Amino acid sequence: MAPVKKGILERLNAGQIVIGDGGFVFALEKRGYVKAGPWTPEATVTHPESVRQLHREFLRAGSNVMQTFTFYASDDKLENRGNDLRLTGQQVNEAACDLAREVANEGDALVAGGVSQTPSYLSCKSEIDVKAIFRKQMDVFIKKNVDFLIAEYFEHVEEAEWAVQVLKTSGKPVAASLCIGPEGDLNGVSPGDCAVRLVKAGAQIVGINCHFDPMTCVKTVKLMKQGVERAGLKAHYMVQPLAFHTPDCNCQGFIDLPEFPFGLEPRVLTRWDMHKYAREAYNVGIRYIGGCCGFEAYHIRAVTEELAPEIGHLPAASEKHGMWGSGLEMHTKPWVRARSHRDYWEKLQPASGRPKCPSLSTPDSWGVTKGHSDLVQHKEATSEQEIRQLLEKQKKAKASVK
Amino acid sequence: MAPVKKGILERLNAGQIVIGDGGFVFALEKRGYVKAGPWTPEATVTHPESVRQLHREFLRAGSNVMQTFTFYASDDKLENRGNDLRLTGQQVNEAACDLAREVANEGDALVAGGVSQTPSYLSCKSEIDVKAIFRKQMDVFIKKNVDFLIAEYFEHVEEAEWAVQVLKTSGKPVAASLCIGPEGDLNGVSPGDCAVRLVKAGAQIVGINCHFDPMTCVKTVKLMKQGVERAGLKAHYMVQPLAFHTPDCNCQGFIDLPEFPFGLEPRVLTRWDMHKYAREAYNVGIRYIGGCCGFEAYHIRAVTEELAPEIGHLPAASEKHGMWGSGLEMHTKPWVRARSHRDYWEKLQPASGRPKCPSLSTPDSWGVTKGHSDLVQHKEATSEQEIRQLLEKQKKAKASVK
Amino acid sequence: MAPVKKGILERLNAGQIVIGDGGFVFALEKRGYVKAGPWTPEATVTHPESVRQLHREFLRAGSNVMQTFTFYASDDKLENRGNDLRLTGQQVNEAACDLAREVANEGDALVAGGVSQTPSYLSCKSEIDVKAIFRKQMDVFIKKNVDFLIAEYFEHVEEAEWAVQVLKTSGKPVAASLCIGPEGDLNGVSPGDCAVRLVKAGAQIVGINCHFDPMTCVKTVKLMKQGVERAGLKAHYMVQPLAFHTPDCNCQGFIDLPEFPFGLEPRVLTRWDMHKYAREAYNVGIRYIGGCCGFEAYHIRAVTEELAPEIGHLPAASEKHGMWGSGLEMHTKPWVRARSHRDYWEKLQPASGRPKCPSLSTPDSWGVTKGHSDLVQHKEATSEQEIRQLLEKQKKAKASVK
Amino acid sequence: MAPVKKGILERLNAGQIVIGDGGFVFALEKRGYVKAGPWTPEATVTHPESVRQLHREFLRAGSNVMQTFTFYASDDKLENRGNDLRLTGQQVNEAACDLAREVANEGDALVAGGVSQTPSYLSCKSEIDVKAIFRKQMDVFIKKNVDFLIAEYFEHVEEAEWAVQVLKTSGKPVAASLCIGPEGDLNGVSPGDCAVRLVKAGAQIVGINCHFDPMTCVKTVKLMKQGVERAGLKAHYMVQPLAFHTPDCNCQGFIDLPEFPFGLEPRVLTRWDMHKYAREAYNVGIRYIGGCCGFEAYHIRAVTEELAPEIGHLPAASEKHGMWGSGLEMHTKPWVRARSHRDYWEKLQPASGRPKCPSLSTPDSWGVTKGHSDLVQHKEATSEQEIRQLLEKQKKAKASVK
Repeated sequence: MAPVKKGILERLNAGQIVIGDGGFVFALEKRGYVKAGPWTPEATVTHPESVRQLHREFLRAGSNVMQTFTFYASDDKLENRGNDLRLTGQQVNEAACDLAREVANEGDALVAGGVSQTPSYLSCKSEIDVKAIFRKQMDVFIKKNVDFLIAEYFEHVEEAEWAVQVLKTSGKPVAASLCIGPEGDLNGVSPGDCAVRLVKAGAQIVGINCHFDPMTCVKTVKLMKQGVERAGLKAHYMVQPLAFHTPDCNCQGFIDLPEFPFGLEPRVLTRWDMHKYAREAYNVGIRYIGGCCGFEAYHIRAVTEELAPEIGHLPAASEKHGMWGSGLEMHTKPWVRARSHRDYWEKLQPASGRPKCPSLSTPDSWGVTKGHSDLVQHKEATSEQEIRQLLEKQKKAKASVK
Repeated sequence: MAPVKKGILERLNAGQIVIGDGGFVFALEKRGYVKAGPWTPEATVTHPESVRQLHREFLRAGSNVMQTFTFYASDDKLENRGNDLRLTGQQVNEAACDLAREVANEGDALVAGGVSQTPSYLSCKSEIDVKAIFRKQMDVFIKKNVDFLIAEYFEHVEEAEWAVQVLKTSGKPVAASLCIGPEGDLNGVSPGDCAVRLVKAGAQIVGINCHFDPMTCVKTVKLMKQGVERAGLKAHYMVQPLAFHTPDCNCQGFIDLPEFPFGLEPRVLTRWDMHKYAREAYNVGIRYIGGCCGFEAYHIRAVTEELAPEIGHLPAASEKHGMWGSGLEMHTKPWVRARSHRDYWEKLQPASGRPKCPSLSTPDSWGVTKGHSDLVQHKEATSEQEIRQLLEKQKKAKASVK
Repeated sequence: MAPVKKGILERLNAGQIVIGDGGFVFALEKRGYVKAGPWTPEATVTHPESVRQLHREFLRAGSNVMQTFTFYASDDKLENRGNDLRLTGQQVNEAACDLAREVANEGDALVAGGVSQTPSYLSCKSEIDVKAIFRKQMDVFIKKNVDFLIAEYFEHVEEAEWAVQVLKTSGKPVAASLCIGPEGDLNGVSPGDCAVRLVKAGAQIVGINCHFDPMTCVKTVKLMKQGVERAGLKAHYMVQPLAFHTPDCNCQGFIDLPEFPFGLEPRVLTRWDMHKYAREAYNVGIRYIGGCCGFEAYHIRAVTEELAPEIGHLPAASEKHGMWGSGLEMHTKPWVRARSHRDYWEKLQPASGRPKCPSLSTPDSWGVTKGHSDLVQHKEATSEQEIRQLLEKQKKAKASVK
Repeated sequence: MAPVKKGILERLNAGQIVIGDGGFVFALEKRGYVKAGPWTPEATVTHPESVRQLHREFLRAGSNVMQTFTFYASDDKLENRGNDLRLTGQQVNEAACDLAREVANEGDALVAGGVSQTPSYLSCKSEIDVKAIFRKQMDVFIKKNVDFLIAEYFEHVEEAEWAVQVLKTSGKPVAASLCIGPEGDLNGVSPGDCAVRLVKAGAQIVGINCHFDPMTCVKTVKLMKQGVERAGLKAHYMVQPLAFHTPDCNCQGFIDLPEFPFGLEPRVLTRWDMHKYAREAYNVGIRYIGGCCGFEAYHIRAVTEELAPEIGHLPAASEKHGMWGSGLEMHTKPWVRARSHRDYWEKLQPASGRPKCPSLSTPDSWGVTKGHSDLVQHKEATSEQEIRQLLEKQKKAKASVK
């Protein structure tokens, strides 16, 4: 039996760094187990080995948290998004908990159960309806006894507050993480005000995940922290950004980039970008530092390696990685050996190999959000006529931005 | 029991397409199981689940060949590259064969045993010595009864000939694949002449792998094919390129790019680039079409999807992928649904998100190859003094190129 | 005899568009008549034909204002910047007035006498000293009877106020133009507050010139206009931006870009960029629309052509230019004839032809301004030791920005 | 009276460097005196001051040759290209000679009369007809007693040979310059073979002008030189390239770039690029070194400054230019003073300021040349129906290239 692990709040209260994991939907989409569009996690049931392996890679890379792969695993989502196997949300969520726990037990990691924004909220369902959805997922997390809960990936702070209020009833520690940028949530509530509302709703950890690149997310958490401190409140801070460079995003984040989701390759961060991110996050006072879409194990390893002096040890996967490229000292070609040092990689400005591509894009800017008829969910696949209408709108949106 | 599978030559002789897999060292380096620098495959013994999972992903993506993960698994390499576990080449090679066979049996895939260029050749060891290394690896492949053999990743056609000559003694079909570009091997032998020599040495399949991007590799195989046909010979053709854009490479390929190996992210091909590649390879007359470093499962799936009309069916992993982005019809945001069609993705010129980076680099151009003292292998890690000398040389090489 | 021309205020009060000219120092530097560094206008005396010809080109392009080429023509500047010919400020200024008047008389243009920020202000000389310098230049303008006066290229609104106060004593209309961006002047005074102060000092026309690209300057003038209107004041607005794209500038403008002043070529605006600029400036309510450094005659012609419907006629130089490229209908090659329409040029995203260059730079950010010892002027050329110290500072500034 | 000047061949035979001038049509188009499309030089008659001034700028910058501004000044061209003033070719050519001579007399420069490729050749007129056109222009040059003759801007070596044969009858020295790249003329004749044919036709100086960037042109002249030497012949060599970077050109040069002619700004070479060009041209053995479209006076000055050690003195315009930026020692801002040295400018990779633009384009590739019906000239302006057909063809050409 493993010794009892320290809980998330014990760690953070003690000033310890907690390394998060990376996003599962993007990684497993590339491996062939998640479908872009619905983005649902049936693989926990149908291909558990793929989910288990990804957990293991993050664990080896230094992650102290295994998030259950339960993104979009609510019944309303599974139902209307082509779930042919007729799996229930409960089945998917339970399998996810078991997998996360199995791997967490192989090391010093906690299990976190996660809920995210719902189609129901965007379609203007009532607070009661939306909360019922969170409660249903939470019941599984309680049954499976996860270590703490995360309400993450919310574009509207109001829905996140509702989620926190539900999750608090579990008695477990609650983290809350929005997918917004420095301009605030989609109703224009500033990061500082969002953070204050989440802390007041009961979240012990607040922060940002997804939608923007690491430096933008760190900047936004900094604004949250300033808001919380100005309000005389206390909280811990977390950040789990994209592993994509997104300097050209508007307030809706990378969803609006023309490259989303099938052309983001040139934007992927290098491990050296991750060193800068980890240091900056630490300097700002964030202690729960992980990743979201685009992160692979080597990105988390880089975060852990950067903070190894503070953490006190390297992650397991560093047995297969020389710090700052020092493993290249063993390369066959001498000119590659000449690259085995920090200065080389820190200064490198990597070329895209794509001379006919620009370096920045013009994001779509539809400017529609909660309550807009375009966002109301329906079960049927989009019809051809709807697509034609969308293309027309897209064209206009582009023209107006230029 | 699975029915007896058709062999590689039966398939190619029948005009069938054979989909290869992707490279293992880069994929497993990112997952934390291979060390960049030595690039050796001890994970087959130490972390078999990671190797098995990667095989499975390629199988699901449509691969008809599971290559044994035996890259650089010769004793001379393992010895001088910091192999702490004291694993023998035989142990590593046998484990690799078992893993490949296990997964191959889960679908319609063959097992291919592979040998690659040796440090011994670069250090000017004799033909007898070099051939002894190939023979040692081959003995494992014969014992484990792989379906066919590949001599791949050779920069000098002479060494590849030696490998083919050894592998031919097994009685199994032999493929030979060089890592050269249109300018020819590192001694300047043209692709056409290289191909003729390999066919004469006994290879039934010839082609190109690694070192250059897909379109460059296809172009080089085309030159090989023209050479073989001009010589009145016959062969099958294979191509397993990088998944990186490398328009700025010189004759030594991506090793010379300043981004190799830790800053190549912005160069990774999208799935749509892979469609173009697969079609072009097919049009040129290549029937064994796969990938090398940088390829992940979704790249191979894209190759298979492009050729699905010719193959007759989609791969298993396409259950999680709408052709040409059609899965996005189920996306929450309407403007992402508007991207659910071929025309959108074919025309996209994806931005790098890195406005301070260039689009092309200046490759290192040391111009040293077999026999040069800088390339002679030694067991010790590179000393600080050696690194200082290398940095000096690098600086000069850069200056002269500009 | 030409009929009496309408004055600048008559025109603007009547709602007429006034087209400015372009900057002389950059244009004449390229032609070989101005030295980058000192940037002084001795050519009015030594090579009057070069100055006259440039005036004529702008006149033909539609300019309604000939600004006297008197930039940096104060005695303190001429003295300490290697003026070998021992020309006095008065000689240079008088010659400039005569040249501007000569060409203005060839068409419907007014002559404007201009004063700019002084080294004395940066060196913390007193208000009395600085005003004396402006008065000396103004005396020439009065003697030569220019049509109106412009105080332009000020980084500190305080110095611009002093200039306006002096110029107002002439009884002539006064325009005031700062070289600041949306963040305000170098002491952080917002554009709106700057504008209010200038109007209160007596300027009838306020706006922005130099330092930033057209769209940034228009945006800044918009902020000025909002400030003036909020304060219940009235003014006319002018804008004379750079013809360089500067999205990567910080508050000090293009001076801080590493490309300044000898590597700005890739940033030069096309004539089609100028159409967008002219329309945007007009829409914002600016009626005095011209240019500064980087502008050549064809840029001003493009501004005039875009606004021809409002102006009522095309400029003389349009006899040599088909609107929106229609002159290409006469090109020899058919594929160039296919480019003879607006849609083609509006959509073009012109390539740099420089794949090894980035698209954005990191500006120097020394953050020193008025009063800093580094900015105190001295007569001697910079010594080698000073340059070495500067290089050291530059290195540190770069490092801190990255 | 000026002393008798040394002739072009005397200079070259003595091993002297001869600095050419830059192209007039692009420079004067920007100044408002030439119309893009027809590109004809009526300004020699209508606005002689503009032509005179441009000659003077090049003279000041170091040019030893004033080329008469007689590009496309043949009657057939003037007639069918909207020449409203009813000027004859003779009038235009004579005025051009007078202007060139006037300015040449102000310094140490020779006058060169130039003929270029004719619409008649592209339209398949006979050798007799085409030669008659050259003879008509030559008669003016003889009457005006120019110092030597240049047949320049030919895409087909055959037409250039005809021109040389005509010009030789004058008894004056003859230079011949093609607008081709390393792949040869539009019929595929290699640069080496082209050069041999031109020398055999009687040209004493052979080389390349226009259509490609400096380094490409130097490379092509090198191939010409090798051809001439292999054939056991002798010649002098000249090069007058574009001042635009064109790495993405195909065999037809910059005409095919989508940016031609109104979006080439981002491609303009810096003065520092010109230093490299001048040195490389000199090293290859070229002694007549000048420019063509895109060159402005400061580009020629940079060429002259680079070769000043060999020439023995700086050009007049260097009084307004510190070598390698040393004039910046007098700049007001200290961080700009820190840029006053060679190392800074040599290493600068200038940003485009255009993050939404690519670095390379896909050229049009119509692949039509002499004799193709699309190229036959007609006097009428292109009709709307013709333009529509062209757009259709353009679309197809683009699609096939991608």
